[in-house]
Amino acid sequence: MAVVGVVMGSQSDLPVMDKALQALEEFGIPYAVKILSAHRTLDETVAWARKFAAEGGEVIIAGAGLAAHLPGVVAGAVAIPVIGVPIASGPLNGVDSLYSIVQMPPGVPVACMAIDGAYNGALLAVEILALKNGEVKDKLVRFRQAQADKVTAQDEALQNRGGLGNDQSKRDYHA
Amino acid sequence: MAVVGVVMGSQSDLPVMDKALQALEEFGIPYAVKILSAHRTLDETVAWARKFAAEGGEVIIAGAGLAAHLPGVVAGAVAIPVIGVPIASGPLNGVDSLYSIVQMPPGVPVACMAIDGAYNGALLAVEILALKNGEVKDKLVRFRQAQADKVTAQDEALQNRGGLGNDQSKRDYHA
Amino acid sequence: MAVVGVVMGSQSDLPVMDKALQALEEFGIPYAVKILSAHRTLDETVAWARKFAAEGGEVIIAGAGLAAHLPGVVAGAVAIPVIGVPIASGPLNGVDSLYSIVQMPPGVPVACMAIDGAYNGALLAVEILALKNGEVKDKLVRFRQAQADKVTAQDEALQNRGGLGNDQSKRDYHA
Amino acid sequence: MAVVGVVMGSQSDLPVMDKALQALEEFGIPYAVKILSAHRTLDETVAWARKFAAEGGEVIIAGAGLAAHLPGVVAGAVAIPVIGVPIASGPLNGVDSLYSIVQMPPGVPVACMAIDGAYNGALLAVEILALKNGEVKDKLVRFRQAQADKVTAQDEALQNRGGLGNDQSKRDYHA
Amino acid sequence: MAVVGVVMGSQSDLPVMDKALQALEEFGIPYAVKILSAHRTLDETVAWARKFAAEGGEVIIAGAGLAAHLPGVVAGAVAIPVIGVPIASGPLNGVDSLYSIVQMPPGVPVACMAIDGAYNGALLAVEILALKNGEVKDKLVRFRQAQADKVTAQDEALQNRGGLGNDQSKRDYHA
Amino acid sequence: MAVVGVVMGSQSDLPVMDKALQALEEFGIPYAVKILSAHRTLDETVAWARKFAAEGGEVIIAGAGLAAHLPGVVAGAVAIPVIGVPIASGPLNGVDSLYSIVQMPPGVPVACMAIDGAYNGALLAVEILALKNGEVKDKLVRFRQAQADKVTAQDEALQNRGGLGNDQSKRDYHA
Amino acid sequence: MAVVGVVMGSQSDLPVMDKALQALEEFGIPYAVKILSAHRTLDETVAWARKFAAEGGEVIIAGAGLAAHLPGVVAGAVAIPVIGVPIASGPLNGVDSLYSIVQMPPGVPVACMAIDGAYNGALLAVEILALKNGEVKDKLVRFRQAQADKVTAQDEALQNRGGLGNDQSKRDYHA
Amino acid sequence: MAVVGVVMGSQSDLPVMDKALQALEEFGIPYAVKILSAHRTLDETVAWARKFAAEGGEVIIAGAGLAAHLPGVVAGAVAIPVIGVPIASGPLNGVDSLYSIVQMPPGVPVACMAIDGAYNGALLAVEILALKNGEVKDKLVRFRQAQADKVTAQDEALQNRGGLGNDQSKRDYHA
Repeated sequence: MAVVGVVMGSQSDLPVMDKALQALEEFGIPYAVKILSAHRTLDETVAWARKFAAEGGEVIIAGAGLAAHLPGVVAGAVAIPVIGVPIASGPLNGVDSLYSIVQMPPGVPVACMAIDGAYNGALLAVEILALKNGEVKDKLVRFRQAQADKVTAQDEALQNRGGLGNDQSKRDYHA
Repeated sequence: MAVVGVVMGSQSDLPVMDKALQALEEFGIPYAVKILSAHRTLDETVAWARKFAAEGGEVIIAGAGLAAHLPGVVAGAVAIPVIGVPIASGPLNGVDSLYSIVQMPPGVPVACMAIDGAYNGALLAVEILALKNGEVKDKLVRFRQAQADKVTAQDEALQNRGGLGNDQSKRDYHA
Repeated sequence: MAVVGVVMGSQSDLPVMDKALQALEEFGIPYAVKILSAHRTLDETVAWARKFAAEGGEVIIAGAGLAAHLPGVVAGAVAIPVIGVPIASGPLNGVDSLYSIVQMPPGVPVACMAIDGAYNGALLAVEILALKNGEVKDKLVRFRQAQADKVTAQDEALQNRGGLGNDQSKRDYHA
Repeated sequence: MAVVGVVMGSQSDLPVMDKALQALEEFGIPYAVKILSAHRTLDETVAWARKFAAEGGEVIIAGAGLAAHLPGVVAGAVAIPVIGVPIASGPLNGVDSLYSIVQMPPGVPVACMAIDGAYNGALLAVEILALKNGEVKDKLVRFRQAQADKVTAQDEALQNRGGLGNDQSKRDYHA
Repeated sequence: MAVVGVVMGSQSDLPVMDKALQALEEFGIPYAVKILSAHRTLDETVAWARKFAAEGGEVIIAGAGLAAHLPGVVAGAVAIPVIGVPIASGPLNGVDSLYSIVQMPPGVPVACMAIDGAYNGALLAVEILALKNGEVKDKLVRFRQAQADKVTAQDEALQNRGGLGNDQSKRDYHA
Repeated sequence: MAVVGVVMGSQSDLPVMDKALQALEEFGIPYAVKILSAHRTLDETVAWARKFAAEGGEVIIAGAGLAAHLPGVVAGAVAIPVIGVPIASGPLNGVDSLYSIVQMPPGVPVACMAIDGAYNGALLAVEILALKNGEVKDKLVRFRQAQADKVTAQDEALQNRGGLGNDQSKRDYHA
Repeated sequence: MAVVGVVMGSQSDLPVMDKALQALEEFGIPYAVKILSAHRTLDETVAWARKFAAEGGEVIIAGAGLAAHLPGVVAGAVAIPVIGVPIASGPLNGVDSLYSIVQMPPGVPVACMAIDGAYNGALLAVEILALKNGEVKDKLVRFRQAQADKVTAQDEALQNRGGLGNDQSKRDYHA
Repeated sequence: MAVVGVVMGSQSDLPVMDKALQALEEFGIPYAVKILSAHRTLDETVAWARKFAAEGGEVIIAGAGLAAHLPGVVAGAVAIPVIGVPIASGPLNGVDSLYSIVQMPPGVPVACMAIDGAYNGALLAVEILALKNGEVKDKLVRFRQAQADKVTAQDEALQNRGGLGNDQSKRDYHA
């Protein structure tokens, strides 16, 4: 059964939300993915979210752009953790979506990610699941190490780049 | 029967939304008023909106603060005109609420008013109702004239204020 | 006779406002369209708006960019519903236009749409007209259903996309 | 042992963060609370966070104002879920803090709450803990119901307020 | 005859606009002052502006808050210089008014002042008038000198304040 | 002699400021143009501005991007009208430049134009010069008429566009 | 002789800038303080800054509000480090001042502090001076330790506050 | 030994930060450059910064995008001057990074540059080093002169551009 549900408001959100799907694949997390609209298919949205939670779904990641109501509506429908991903679309570049998601009123939390931050949305889901699943936890620890290694590799490439460090001036400079 | 429905997300929105109620009273428009939350009482919100529209309600005015999803959720539930009133509450002073209401995606419009603009929300409802009700139209024309008269009265009070117009310099100034 | 008037401040607004015209065509709403400037042709703007309303026009949709005064000026000239469409043009990307339209002072409402939201402007006009025209109402109900169907179709296409759902890991995951 | 750690950057954040503590008390969640600065006591912050996670702490809620680095630094130090609470302090009213918390780069997520949204921060922690603790889940379901009941009670109080509903005009209005 | 016209949208703008009147008094500039609304009394506004310009008025200062259309409408009606003063009123603190005034489209300029900058509006009018009036020019030169003198006087007061300059440390510090 | 001085902070501002030069050419206004930096060539900037004003220059138009200090520094150096043009350059798209120009403190006004609004800057200069020069005034009146004619021509082109006006539906629609 | 110069645009900036003076006193840094305006007393500002630098002044801290040109003008006049302090004054709450200071064009840097961050401005000056003055360096190290100690003391006070830690639930909670 | 350390959060920041390296080369300042992440390699970041300062490094320039914690974390780790460079990346165009860097709380200053202002970051470092190094000071004075010369050269190129100055109208214009 899917433990993470990934839902988005429109097909146009897929390029951003695909990064969440890829991260979930990477961690081997079973997931379901849905296109559902908080405005156009409100009943289906609520029904899907409740069914997902009732059948053992543990986390929902919801992404939407503009006046992004999808994460909040889902969070009102279920009591499992809901992660919101604001998507930059249109002239306001995602600030509209950010405010629509992050400024939830007291009582119904949404865990808001950065604008277009679907990848981090999946990672937060993984962190939550790792609390009860040792295998996921192990993968997470290895993932964190791999991330650090990438930074180190980038730094090594930089150190090996020619013309760095201003060697000539080092000899001449009198501090 | 109520022809305008006024709905707000919380008791704390009442001081702002009361201006809409007062305007509706002024114009003699039968209205219903509800506190309903898009997150805490989602099912009741959708049910109320649909029942209101089904029983002949013609316009809904929805006010909410912060991540204001109420107008959009109501607009998704019914196909009558929905007027949204962003309410300034919290540190972002209503910009969050404005963006959450005005930036509705294509397909489901919300007629957005100024932040805290509940009074104008009622006036827009009146303008809509006036299209099919001659009495309301007449009241609206008189209201517009009264508004103009108030500006004129303010100007007259200003003209009668002492020390204005720089009379002394008028004699001395050589353009 | 035209029941909806669509007015814009400049030829450069046409690509955005055309979406409103298309929606009105879709719904079979007779409309008039005008280019008029609140600053360059102020008298003509006011005269046109008053004539339109006097001859039975029911709703005006006004789009403008930058310091967008056209919707407010038209709303001051007539007492029928005026829908404002902020248009993204110039370095502020439509925030200037949004604030110039949505923040109308009390007494003269403008129904503000999203930035570049001309399509929704037409839909709101349709919702208003549907209050007195059963045929329009029927079309609106069908339109809403078609919108929901599109979301469902997008979701089905997504479900049929290969590589989704992480089937392998579903077998391995121990929740 | 504490399962939730609540950390804040300064004593001045306590009035906001106390709402998180109260919510945790409400749900009977054992918690630890700390004042630690990402800049002034960087080593202690990292050490505390790692010790908390190593000893079985499951969720950290971190609140900070201005250039709010505390949640991100903690999230970099541990791999358990970190919830960030932007705190409105100073002339930017929390937008600085919001951007400093929500815009985390890919790889290290922070679950961002609304500005001053410490209460929701605790509720998200509760939702996470409820995934593995049935008692917490039951309390959460009851809490959600109580929230809905409060909205209903507010609405009932509103319905009983005198002078509502415009009864006189209901008789006179011809729709 | 008045050479400067000062117009504002509402009585509530008077405390800000009074600073313009005071500056004009200071410089002995004959002025007229009006309350006129771009929305409520559009015809009167246009008529007044045109009459003022036709009778030899040389500069108009227009102040307004929220969606501030008054300066732009006046600038569309006449071809003399129009100075706009955005007024901070309502939750957006004058940013709405600033954008509504400063972002005028090409062809019809408005000289925008700072938010609540009515005093500078009058000074700009004085600078314009000084181009053709030697007496005003002389007063302007003296005013500028007086402004500089005030800064110098403030500095002198500061220098005479006790405890400044860190005299003790001056003796001890080894640069 | 030049009556208008056009100054900009860098060669990169020329594409925007050229619109001011073109407008001045159009109106036959003698002008001088300078590249001068408020930071890199502060003394030359102040010296040029003072010399320009001393030799009879009447208006200065100053354009700059980013932290745009040039208009304010020039306005501090001379007592003739200074028109500021914020230029969109860099990631903030001109908001930085707008705030740096429009928010001048009391005592030293700058007439701020829209972001990239160099053309309007020239038009404001023309309006100022027209106060003492009948030929310029005549050109200005003709220019305004030509502007209105352009809008009318755009509207005529629109009316002649095929497929407008929804002729079919006009026959079928029953208002 | 003064090694740090503290300059502000107006007496009204003194309450904010006094925090810089207090920090300099704390560290025993000899300083000079001046009120000087980039617009009203431009020549004096430039002359003072150059004289200060010529006589061995090492760092200048400049604070200003609104369109804050003072730090940039001073940075253009001298080649020693200039620290800018944006001051919150007026409706934009210091964002105008921040942008006017931080967005300096390439070639003339200003070290920008937080809005109202005069205290940090002095600390940065101290850090710069400590590079050549061992006594200042020692004081800086002790200051940093004292800052850490204050955080620890705040935390200890918090730990001793009654009712914390949810002891009862600790016994009952089954993780 | 390197006297300036240039550190950035990711390889993707290199195109911006390279401008700092080029400026340091230009001035012959020995520098070290590192890619280090405040979140992914927190320990290494702190260790590197402390080692750099302990070995005589005098200034650190830290650049980062999004929620840019790197400059603040480094500033918390060492007591030498830290210069922060906000980098525009992602939908918020660097405002997120600017706020995350400039709004440092009292006690731990970061000298913030303009968004993408790495070149100025290096120049500020040069200004700081020039306080103790006469050769650097001389180079700085020559650099400033060369900058002024470039502006003058740009102006000369402009003066020699054809079609400027409106010579014909100069003969005809009657001021």
